[in-house]
Amino acid sequence: MRESQAIQRLRRIATSPAALGLADDTALLDGLILTHDSIAEGVHFLPSDPPASVGWKLVAVNLSDIAAKGATPAAALLSLALSGDDVWDMSFLDGIEAACESYGLALVGGDTIALPAGAPRVFGLTAIGRAGEAVPLRRGGRDGDALWLVGTLGDSAAGLALLEADAAATGVLVDVYRRPVPQLAAGQALAPHAHAMMDVSDGLLIDTMRLAEASGVSASIDLDVLPLSRAFVAERSADAEARMFAATGGDDYALLAALDPESDPLRLSLPSGTTIVRIGTLSAEGPLLSLVSGGSPVPLPERLGHEHRSNPASPVVDSD
Amino acid sequence: MRESQAIQRLRRIATSPAALGLADDTALLDGLILTHDSIAEGVHFLPSDPPASVGWKLVAVNLSDIAAKGATPAAALLSLALSGDDVWDMSFLDGIEAACESYGLALVGGDTIALPAGAPRVFGLTAIGRAGEAVPLRRGGRDGDALWLVGTLGDSAAGLALLEADAAATGVLVDVYRRPVPQLAAGQALAPHAHAMMDVSDGLLIDTMRLAEASGVSASIDLDVLPLSRAFVAERSADAEARMFAATGGDDYALLAALDPESDPLRLSLPSGTTIVRIGTLSAEGPLLSLVSGGSPVPLPERLGHEHRSNPASPVVDSD
Repeated sequence: MRESQAIQRLRRIATSPAALGLADDTALLDGLILTHDSIAEGVHFLPSDPPASVGWKLVAVNLSDIAAKGATPAAALLSLALSGDDVWDMSFLDGIEAACESYGLALVGGDTIALPAGAPRVFGLTAIGRAGEAVPLRRGGRDGDALWLVGTLGDSAAGLALLEADAAATGVLVDVYRRPVPQLAAGQALAPHAHAMMDVSDGLLIDTMRLAEASGVSASIDLDVLPLSRAFVAERSADAEARMFAATGGDDYALLAALDPESDPLRLSLPSGTTIVRIGTLSAEGPLLSLVSGGSPVPLPERLGHEHRSNPASPVVDSD
Repeated sequence: MRESQAIQRLRRIATSPAALGLADDTALLDGLILTHDSIAEGVHFLPSDPPASVGWKLVAVNLSDIAAKGATPAAALLSLALSGDDVWDMSFLDGIEAACESYGLALVGGDTIALPAGAPRVFGLTAIGRAGEAVPLRRGGRDGDALWLVGTLGDSAAGLALLEADAAATGVLVDVYRRPVPQLAAGQALAPHAHAMMDVSDGLLIDTMRLAEASGVSASIDLDVLPLSRAFVAERSADAEARMFAATGGDDYALLAALDPESDPLRLSLPSGTTIVRIGTLSAEGPLLSLVSGGSPVPLPERLGHEHRSNPASPVVDSD
């Protein structure tokens, strides 16, 4: 069963308005934003990843969903499966603690279990944020909106590729893969102005398609303007292949926001050093997702991003 | 690492008042009761258990924690690891849906992942309840309080023993093991009158010791009055050995409440058929837990209950 099939079944159960149609990776209950992400060894992290970074990443990926709704971190519940390796487990908890402290997230509960011997490690975190005055959903994008991206693309996927080639690889890209930074301040600044917002976790192209689909509009992305870091360009260059890699790699934890074309998010009070770029447009007509480069159309690649499955980077084309 | 050691480390992280010192299996945030339970194949359920019953049980064990705080079910987030067996997974979701519908719990979100091939199934649920006017914690028990128990003991452990002897076993005890019923209405009725309350999930003796420890008092239990079902007595008899089995078996999802000795919970409006029995007393002096039968002291058994570890019923003696 594909993740998408399971979600179809879950949508028939999750009929409460608080579920937001399961379209947003978050729920909204009593002014609280609720989200849960689980990670498994060999799927979402490498057995060789430092355990403290695994703990950090579990918190950060949840907070990225909180950021995408413009909310403020409040509390978290941890599902901790003891691995039988005390040193590993304690270091993992150090990473959980560091991330919680960094972002003001109070660990308030959870569950501790053991898995059968030899089972891959699995962890989960439920993060709860307090909503601000506006909660931009995926479905709010409108004809004519400008698509803005906060953060750079491809760093994490490039870091993972380095680690897959050499488990002892180090450097900026590896660091970004292991310790993503949720865009909380930018999310809070953008939320009151965004018609729609989500985080980019599975790849820009697949996630943009999801926003367009939820909003009932078409999205167009200009590949030439995608924000790439200096470390990424040094590793992969900035040619068409590298740009497509960045647009489909995933694990970016960037923010994608649909704003009125008259809005200028560059005037907002964003944290210094924030990368924010206008990457495309929403429109009423056309295919769900189209790409341009040098002013010319570019065919969609076979792989738009990934669903998290047994294979860390299984290709998937959304057939909708 | 034992579960108890991990919890000690987690307590140093979870310093927010909302965490309630991680003493209650639940947190309290903005009038909401938050809890999370995870279950793993081969630890918390049997590979041969019907998948719909596994889904039901995951919801029910979480709602038992909600019941113990006198709260009303509101919303849940599901961590769903796809097993690769579509029929199993869909039936599991049928069980989730049935339990959510039965208890008015709205599924509002979660995460769907795949595990590496061959990994044991692991699921998690975060349940959220709306607190009533009173939220009885474990730590509120007082010298002189009467200990009351809602529900019967030992049925589930007896059902598990039947299944371990014969995976095709059926009957009332097997049903109780597979489809526990959270005592929500009784929890709501008792909460305004209870000084302390918790659910009995790991075994009456270990859980009572935890309540006594959290409250800074001693607990005494009269083994002769422990409530046993007719099905349990038919299977195991009601002798001393059977009573000790019932007091330590776990998976009961009964409620344990400490009430003022003047309170009479039999006068409360409880659902018809509710079993509620006074089983003991809290006092300022004495060992953390003591047992009596026929008016005479009974030594504590080596095994007071179980922590959930790789071995489904690993013995543990709380050393505090």
